Amino acid sequence: MEFTASVNKLAQPLVQELLNNADKLRLHLHTLDNGCTLIDAGINAPGGLEAGRIITEICLGGMGTVSLSHSNYTDNWPLTVNVYSTNPVLACLGSQYAGWSLSHEKYYALGSGPARAMATKTKDGVSQPVEELYKELAYQDSHEQTVLVIENDKLPPVEIVEKIAAACGLAPAQLTIIVTPTSSLAGCVQVVGRVLEVAMHKAHALHFPLENIIDGSGSAPVCPPHPNFVGAMGRTNDAILFAGLVHLFVKGGDDAAEQLANQLPSSTSKDYGKPFAKIFKEYQYDFFKIDAMLFSPASVIVTAVDSGKSFRAGRLDNELLNLSFGA
Amino acid sequence: MEFTASVNKLAQPLVQELLNNADKLRLHLHTLDNGCTLIDAGINAPGGLEAGRIITEICLGGMGTVSLSHSNYTDNWPLTVNVYSTNPVLACLGSQYAGWSLSHEKYYALGSGPARAMATKTKDGVSQPVEELYKELAYQDSHEQTVLVIENDKLPPVEIVEKIAAACGLAPAQLTIIVTPTSSLAGCVQVVGRVLEVAMHKAHALHFPLENIIDGSGSAPVCPPHPNFVGAMGRTNDAILFAGLVHLFVKGGDDAAEQLANQLPSSTSKDYGKPFAKIFKEYQYDFFKIDAMLFSPASVIVTAVDSGKSFRAGRLDNELLNLSFGA
Amino acid sequence: MEFTASVNKLAQPLVQELLNNADKLRLHLHTLDNGCTLIDAGINAPGGLEAGRIITEICLGGMGTVSLSHSNYTDNWPLTVNVYSTNPVLACLGSQYAGWSLSHEKYYALGSGPARAMATKTKDGVSQPVEELYKELAYQDSHEQTVLVIENDKLPPVEIVEKIAAACGLAPAQLTIIVTPTSSLAGCVQVVGRVLEVAMHKAHALHFPLENIIDGSGSAPVCPPHPNFVGAMGRTNDAILFAGLVHLFVKGGDDAAEQLANQLPSSTSKDYGKPFAKIFKEYQYDFFKIDAMLFSPASVIVTAVDSGKSFRAGRLDNELLNLSFGA
Repeated sequence: MEFTASVNKLAQPLVQELLNNADKLRLHLHTLDNGCTLIDAGINAPGGLEAGRIITEICLGGMGTVSLSHSNYTDNWPLTVNVYSTNPVLACLGSQYAGWSLSHEKYYALGSGPARAMATKTKDGVSQPVEELYKELAYQDSHEQTVLVIENDKLPPVEIVEKIAAACGLAPAQLTIIVTPTSSLAGCVQVVGRVLEVAMHKAHALHFPLENIIDGSGSAPVCPPHPNFVGAMGRTNDAILFAGLVHLFVKGGDDAAEQLANQLPSSTSKDYGKPFAKIFKEYQYDFFKIDAMLFSPASVIVTAVDSGKSFRAGRLDNELLNLSFGA
Repeated sequence: MEFTASVNKLAQPLVQELLNNADKLRLHLHTLDNGCTLIDAGINAPGGLEAGRIITEICLGGMGTVSLSHSNYTDNWPLTVNVYSTNPVLACLGSQYAGWSLSHEKYYALGSGPARAMATKTKDGVSQPVEELYKELAYQDSHEQTVLVIENDKLPPVEIVEKIAAACGLAPAQLTIIVTPTSSLAGCVQVVGRVLEVAMHKAHALHFPLENIIDGSGSAPVCPPHPNFVGAMGRTNDAILFAGLVHLFVKGGDDAAEQLANQLPSSTSKDYGKPFAKIFKEYQYDFFKIDAMLFSPASVIVTAVDSGKSFRAGRLDNELLNLSFGA
Repeated sequence: MEFTASVNKLAQPLVQELLNNADKLRLHLHTLDNGCTLIDAGINAPGGLEAGRIITEICLGGMGTVSLSHSNYTDNWPLTVNVYSTNPVLACLGSQYAGWSLSHEKYYALGSGPARAMATKTKDGVSQPVEELYKELAYQDSHEQTVLVIENDKLPPVEIVEKIAAACGLAPAQLTIIVTPTSSLAGCVQVVGRVLEVAMHKAHALHFPLENIIDGSGSAPVCPPHPNFVGAMGRTNDAILFAGLVHLFVKGGDDAAEQLANQLPSSTSKDYGKPFAKIFKEYQYDFFKIDAMLFSPASVIVTAVDSGKSFRAGRLDNELLNLSFGA
């Protein structure tokens, strides 16, 4: 694995597309006193499906293709997001994964997207990535502009903005922050659009060598938005857990590919079997008590390109999907 | 509802795409003596599917995404158009709806697309929109170039061209007119591509508050062209009536959303149940005798975003579709 | 048939897209001493699905739309390529068809894409197209840059590069050659992306008048790559033979359209009924012993636009597809 593409550079034309078409995409733009641009994609602005689609491509560091169309894969939910990337390890883990914990007083958010790949902190006098994951990826991006996507129903306070810019070694004026509430349509698209990323992340958690994942594609139904935060988060997760479909292409032995296929689906988790919002409630809303292995697509195909063999496991669960989405 | 985007400005790059790629898209371009550009997309020029796709995006005022791909939603008709918009009320009603009646001697046509949003007439000494609908939308566009799409098998006479330009307050040289016969492939795509618009228009006729419709997506099979005008018009309608599928996202109460879902499908109309061409014939080809409630998608999902509940009604009818399209 | 669009001119922006985004698309670029640019899309470079998609659009002379998404058309293979063109005769036969035999010592390859339309040879003192097909198409392209796609697992020797450039009347510096091994993901996409072309080519072999084909669309599942050349070639063919779906729109009589539909599907061939790799082996790997009528989509719809009637024949064969792809 050696990554030479800049997710920040590649994402910028898409950020410009949002800025130049804010009217058309129904986004609100805010320029802070410090120069940072905030894009409201669903708090006070309506946003919408297409805004969500572009934001998903921004999350993927400009290295992904995200499309929306109707499909009859599920019984009841035609609107579907399809995603694939020119480099799923870099795009999904090195950019799209919501791995940057940001907090200030009562504001807590997870940051996603290209800025993660530039963020550093000083620890024991040494500059290092904010997230451990980047050490494994051996990727440190650099660009004169950056963008972070935050899933939240409030715009971030200025302290968070400054923290992000500083971590990226940039002035706030070089930073754009996009905010999508989970309960917004743009939010639904951008979270469900993580179906491939979720598979990549679980593959990593299962210690599958990332350098052996050469390509992949994913799809999942766009969930109907839910006004309540837990309900909204539940549905965006369930779209993937009950109806996400991923096809990965990997190098290496058949045993490793078969094991990956068998272990990847959400149904392998001990917590599988009910809508996410219910699980979350049963764990007293403590996210970290939920089995991390739950977060993965319903159905998986893994093709071992060295042998040409494909392995598949998991399945679409229309009943649970309907229970979550509300039939 | 407050619309700030200019459908005329947003559509112009797509018009340029047609003009710059006329050879590739098999279009014929005519420049009239008065400077107006006519694009023949299926009369003497072959045109085709991709021309129809771009023209549909022009109809949507540059605010829509239209794609063509195969689907197995229907039993027999894989080629499918998918459509969604960054603002369905403005794009579908404020631009795509074929609401501008144009006639000169024996030439009669309905105009569709961005020019509608600029067209004014003087009545009782007061300048007002040509179409009443724009008063409700409170939208009056302005741009230095405009485009109108006409569904007809003849190019319009110069008198119609001049009438359009004058109504828009522009010189004919600032006007492009695109003509697609109903019997052409481009015509089939651009009419079937109205599947979302038809739902918006019926929602409006049902007095559902337009400002409560925040987003939507639609799909329908592209009908095989029919050489006869009535046959062609029948099939383009039937594609939507028997196999159109729309998902709307609306604000407001559950009751209103449920009622909208229940009333939207074509099957709620008293005239539903046979191919459109047959209905049309039975009414002695008097379009206005046909129940206006017929013109709507076969199947509808309405999600009430304030509660997160979804309501669905109607269904795909493969038998009637095959009867219309010719199995 | 009179073709005025330049497939070489139209393809160049897509070639530039590969060159400008080589990092993102994981391509290796080589500039030879003679100035020719070689793009490695799967030999030493990983390449991938999106590289394959763009290369397919290059093969189509910039006149095609190729997209990748999940579909549930087949039982087991969701990843699907969809293709249509603004002019299928010119794009598929005048550019995409792999009709240019190139050999030097032990290197043998078939060339595909826009350069074919510029290639001439001198015979009996007269300059003429390298391929007979171009005489029928009456098409001779001319542009200051050209591109050829080669399906091979080795980069071509300099002698082949010079032969291509000379045949096109250009300096090697004006030539780009893209190489995709059949066993690579980009190779799988670009070969399976020939589903429409294969139908066009068989229609031509069946003496259906090409000028009567006005449009069409196709789809087929992307095969999982196979490391072995015969296995890889087998799967790329089988994707089309067992699960390719094409809809053609033709002028002329119903009889001709019906006959075309009946004769087009792969199942009409005497060699149909087992995976391609097995057939190939049974013929002792002599490609030319295989019934040429085998190479066609599994399922076909032909719409006669002059009558509006559609004819269909053939069918998807999930069993044979699974046998080939490896369930």
